[in-house]
Amino acid sequence: MQFTSDNAAAVHPAVWKAMMAADAADAPYDGDDLSRRLDGAFSALFGRECAVLWVATGTAANCLGLAALVSPHGAVACHREAHIEMDEAGAPGFYLHGAKLLLAEGESARVTPETLAAILDPIRDDVHQVQPHAVSITQASEYGCVYRPADLAAIAAFARGRKLGLHMDGARFANAVAFLGCSPAEAAGDIDVLSFGFVKNGGMSAEAIVFFDVEAARTIRYRRKRAGHLQSKGRFMAAQILAMLEDDVWLANARAANAAAARIAAADPARLLHPVEANEVFLSCTANEREALRAQGFAFYDWGPDAARLVTAWDARDDHVEALARAIAAL
Amino acid sequence: MQFTSDNAAAVHPAVWKAMMAADAADAPYDGDDLSRRLDGAFSALFGRECAVLWVATGTAANCLGLAALVSPHGAVACHREAHIEMDEAGAPGFYLHGAKLLLAEGESARVTPETLAAILDPIRDDVHQVQPHAVSITQASEYGCVYRPADLAAIAAFARGRKLGLHMDGARFANAVAFLGCSPAEAAGDIDVLSFGFVKNGGMSAEAIVFFDVEAARTIRYRRKRAGHLQSKGRFMAAQILAMLEDDVWLANARAANAAAARIAAADPARLLHPVEANEVFLSCTANEREALRAQGFAFYDWGPDAARLVTAWDARDDHVEALARAIAAL
Amino acid sequence: MQFTSDNAAAVHPAVWKAMMAADAADAPYDGDDLSRRLDGAFSALFGRECAVLWVATGTAANCLGLAALVSPHGAVACHREAHIEMDEAGAPGFYLHGAKLLLAEGESARVTPETLAAILDPIRDDVHQVQPHAVSITQASEYGCVYRPADLAAIAAFARGRKLGLHMDGARFANAVAFLGCSPAEAAGDIDVLSFGFVKNGGMSAEAIVFFDVEAARTIRYRRKRAGHLQSKGRFMAAQILAMLEDDVWLANARAANAAAARIAAADPARLLHPVEANEVFLSCTANEREALRAQGFAFYDWGPDAARLVTAWDARDDHVEALARAIAAL
Amino acid sequence: MQFTSDNAAAVHPAVWKAMMAADAADAPYDGDDLSRRLDGAFSALFGRECAVLWVATGTAANCLGLAALVSPHGAVACHREAHIEMDEAGAPGFYLHGAKLLLAEGESARVTPETLAAILDPIRDDVHQVQPHAVSITQASEYGCVYRPADLAAIAAFARGRKLGLHMDGARFANAVAFLGCSPAEAAGDIDVLSFGFVKNGGMSAEAIVFFDVEAARTIRYRRKRAGHLQSKGRFMAAQILAMLEDDVWLANARAANAAAARIAAADPARLLHPVEANEVFLSCTANEREALRAQGFAFYDWGPDAARLVTAWDARDDHVEALARAIAAL
Repeated sequence: MQFTSDNAAAVHPAVWKAMMAADAADAPYDGDDLSRRLDGAFSALFGRECAVLWVATGTAANCLGLAALVSPHGAVACHREAHIEMDEAGAPGFYLHGAKLLLAEGESARVTPETLAAILDPIRDDVHQVQPHAVSITQASEYGCVYRPADLAAIAAFARGRKLGLHMDGARFANAVAFLGCSPAEAAGDIDVLSFGFVKNGGMSAEAIVFFDVEAARTIRYRRKRAGHLQSKGRFMAAQILAMLEDDVWLANARAANAAAARIAAADPARLLHPVEANEVFLSCTANEREALRAQGFAFYDWGPDAARLVTAWDARDDHVEALARAIAAL
Repeated sequence: MQFTSDNAAAVHPAVWKAMMAADAADAPYDGDDLSRRLDGAFSALFGRECAVLWVATGTAANCLGLAALVSPHGAVACHREAHIEMDEAGAPGFYLHGAKLLLAEGESARVTPETLAAILDPIRDDVHQVQPHAVSITQASEYGCVYRPADLAAIAAFARGRKLGLHMDGARFANAVAFLGCSPAEAAGDIDVLSFGFVKNGGMSAEAIVFFDVEAARTIRYRRKRAGHLQSKGRFMAAQILAMLEDDVWLANARAANAAAARIAAADPARLLHPVEANEVFLSCTANEREALRAQGFAFYDWGPDAARLVTAWDARDDHVEALARAIAAL
Repeated sequence: MQFTSDNAAAVHPAVWKAMMAADAADAPYDGDDLSRRLDGAFSALFGRECAVLWVATGTAANCLGLAALVSPHGAVACHREAHIEMDEAGAPGFYLHGAKLLLAEGESARVTPETLAAILDPIRDDVHQVQPHAVSITQASEYGCVYRPADLAAIAAFARGRKLGLHMDGARFANAVAFLGCSPAEAAGDIDVLSFGFVKNGGMSAEAIVFFDVEAARTIRYRRKRAGHLQSKGRFMAAQILAMLEDDVWLANARAANAAAARIAAADPARLLHPVEANEVFLSCTANEREALRAQGFAFYDWGPDAARLVTAWDARDDHVEALARAIAAL
Repeated sequence: MQFTSDNAAAVHPAVWKAMMAADAADAPYDGDDLSRRLDGAFSALFGRECAVLWVATGTAANCLGLAALVSPHGAVACHREAHIEMDEAGAPGFYLHGAKLLLAEGESARVTPETLAAILDPIRDDVHQVQPHAVSITQASEYGCVYRPADLAAIAAFARGRKLGLHMDGARFANAVAFLGCSPAEAAGDIDVLSFGFVKNGGMSAEAIVFFDVEAARTIRYRRKRAGHLQSKGRFMAAQILAMLEDDVWLANARAANAAAARIAAADPARLLHPVEANEVFLSCTANEREALRAQGFAFYDWGPDAARLVTAWDARDDHVEALARAIAAL
């Protein structure tokens, strides 16, 4: 019973169907009809004009999005445990040509204007110090916690006040929207660019970079090709994303994953290391307890010596979830 | 009737089947069973040990392959019309951190030891000049022409003699093997790394970087992730490639595409600008003649003011090919 | 008798004097009084506002100047034999993060709107091709030839018409001004940034990057520090440049060097491979003839198998120059 | 009375003399006689073979030194307050093509095997995480504190044990040697590359990169040129360094600076924030107290709200030092 990663989940049937429908030969790269429909589809979803590029990974989405905001001699302020800092193998350094990440604190991997100010205030406007050009936040955070619209408004005001760009890593943006019960626009706030993730949520290999500054997308098209991310049969990329948007599959899937996580969280709330607001459960438990869970067939990651990370996906089976909840309660 | 690009072709049924079979959840990234089978599959195919990474595009394959051979202060010698020079948006400059391409001449976009020497001999071992670190050749070439084993041996000897790495862009490697009727090992020669293309030949989105220097692959695994090319559901990438290798689908597809091109070439050999050895036909024809062909429903690219490029794919329809051949003969 | 390179020449006494006068402790980096005077001094010289940064080498000056005009995914059009292409070890690729040089033809290493158009016209505005962002010209050229004001106006119009930045490598800008007998502003034309060389012309280690777009200099200050080119005792850099500007030492030195070259050129005009307009003489002569000259004590570089390059400096000794002229005449 | 920075100090008379003696024309770049003597001079000083390159700044020295040890996809472990992290404008990110700095703790800006292990142990050998390739330490540290030979041995053993390169930022290496009273070799320990600083210690614009791995210097010669740091009149660079080495001017100067700092430190030891082991004094004092000192003519930097940084140089005047000591005692 798989609770290792939503990356390991299956591809949604609607996505398969759309991909197969896209098999007929069409223009290569992103000249096909499906790719051309993306801007409109996301503009409708967010209720404002945006320009959208597909790429195969969240890492590429984050880095190409940031490339629109950050010069090589600049820096990105983000949480100390942000994915771009911890899990992307230095990709921001590669894509941003050596620009730096400045690491802020914040509960459950969410930054605040205060924690951002704490790292940015000591930086003089002085050529000896790397200058911040952008802030990157993660919605939902690495610990499965969600920024509320008021949190986002405060961070956006902070960024605007300091003339910093604002990027959102939305690898689990769908889960955040599902949790907040608000519109995608409200769950994003006043940002410049969003990495809208689909792969963890039922897609196969397509993420969307959503540029609310439409002009910025123009430059990043060159950068995408230059990074080897312009696939020649791009119609299969667009097809995945459009299928996820149609009939709100993305939202239904996220709700399912969130519900599974909530069920597991409810098994023993005292063990929770972070509020469970999306599809990740961080559980305080000993090595012996983890051993016991694994002995019952549950797969998951250790999270340091005293905790476990359990991730649910859109296709979590009820019986597996129930079994896990019972097993946790019985620890 | 589509003769624009083999990039526009459909995905082979065997590839679809393998991808669907891979849908069951498995380890993320390249920890899955299919990805782990790649090294063995290619080692068997080439009859020597190799290590293999999948990536989504030929550009990424070429650049990550070259990254194993070239330092940022070095250079790659390649043909003036090589894909890495003409069509990759400066990706080598990005991946190789500013390393340079040195452009050699050569008929039908193939270099020779002589044309390589012509550009490399003037370079002194002097810190003022960018030093060559590798040679990159394209098999089949941008003009659909194929290096013979003796050509490859001469180039490899040249490269070894100057301590240069040797990379092969094999976006149409299958077509070259099909033309030569030899083994993949013979069609590659003594190279360090091969970008083995599948997307133009029936795949959807997976190319293989084949490292004959197995140790080099170790470093490039980090670079692949750092470039945002490590897909989280990598099993779908490996599945495509393994499906293409199984039952020699890759070879059958390439033979089909080559045969279609040969049929078209035979329509009016006097018009051919390059020998037709793979799946591309470069035809001398006026703007009026191209107009006439398009009026009959044939889609293709202009190649400058006086020529057309016609590309066949694995799924070229006989009736389309026959129609095109007749139309050319009738011009 | 040294005719190898103006790089080998001595430092002018006025420069020594100014450096020694700067020895008193002052603010570090470029916070000293001398460095602060540069903007004003060059604004007066060019009759328009400019912002000026010192750096130690022409390579750094060229690359930091270009960094103001070119994005990492862009390209610089320049002459095939430009210093940035031939002699800077790939520094543009390093400073511009992989941006490319596009190589144009042109007599005596000078480009024209026509030769630029020949390489730029085939580039479609298409993500597969590296897009030009700037043009770089060299005044005087690598072959010691000088752009006339009308040439410069045509190139500037060309660049403006295509929204390209315009950079001038002025390692021997002083020699060009001396030849033209015009103002520095006329010898520069409507450019964005000039590398104004002093080291070859009597300085020790200071070149000026002159930004006519004052705002651009702001960003490049960060880039200069980031490249390790912000010296801590910057007062010695500014002192050199100010000493060269005072009493037009730069112009007097260039005139002296040009006059020496003209004297040598007059020895046997039939041998000249390029018009001698600055301080370089390219002479057709056989290996035996070069041998003969060297036997008489003249040091210089071979320029391929059939030519010699003779460079004069501000401190060329009359007796050496006369001796060389006689020796050439006697060949 | 200047205690702001040793960067602001004067140039030593022996350096001036050597520079003027180097004025006679010689081979350009580093082909001159003086530059060729550097390897031998440092090999004698350290009692082991080394290869030495001059550059104009400590930033360039550090970054080019590290470039010999760190791949673009790697990282350098250093102290959180190291100069490469705090004061070099992101130069390591530029020179190392995006490689990362990993920040360790440690008293008075010195790391230990324990503090290094604390940041390195959590890094799995996993493509998702940036891998450490080198350690960089600063001798003397940013707080003017000195690693003892035993400290260095422990760090070198740590680095060797993990196959990490070891770099030393020796902007104030001379001060460390003066404090330890040992040989340069003992004050360096078993490192791969040393940035040996001269500019703060009586030089004008020349630092030495000392490669104990002689082969590494070969590659970095290309990188130096590529970074625009190969000055054309290099003889003036080598002259400075050789003058500093001759008669141990470097050591005498460092002793003088250290003695001045010690005198100031003795004025009120209770105020010292760090042991004074080199030429920097970090003094606890209020804004009012700093105001009082400045009113008496002393120039220095604030160090946060409650402290002052006072730096002495080789040319510190006794009367200034005495005056400052008295003023501090009287606070």
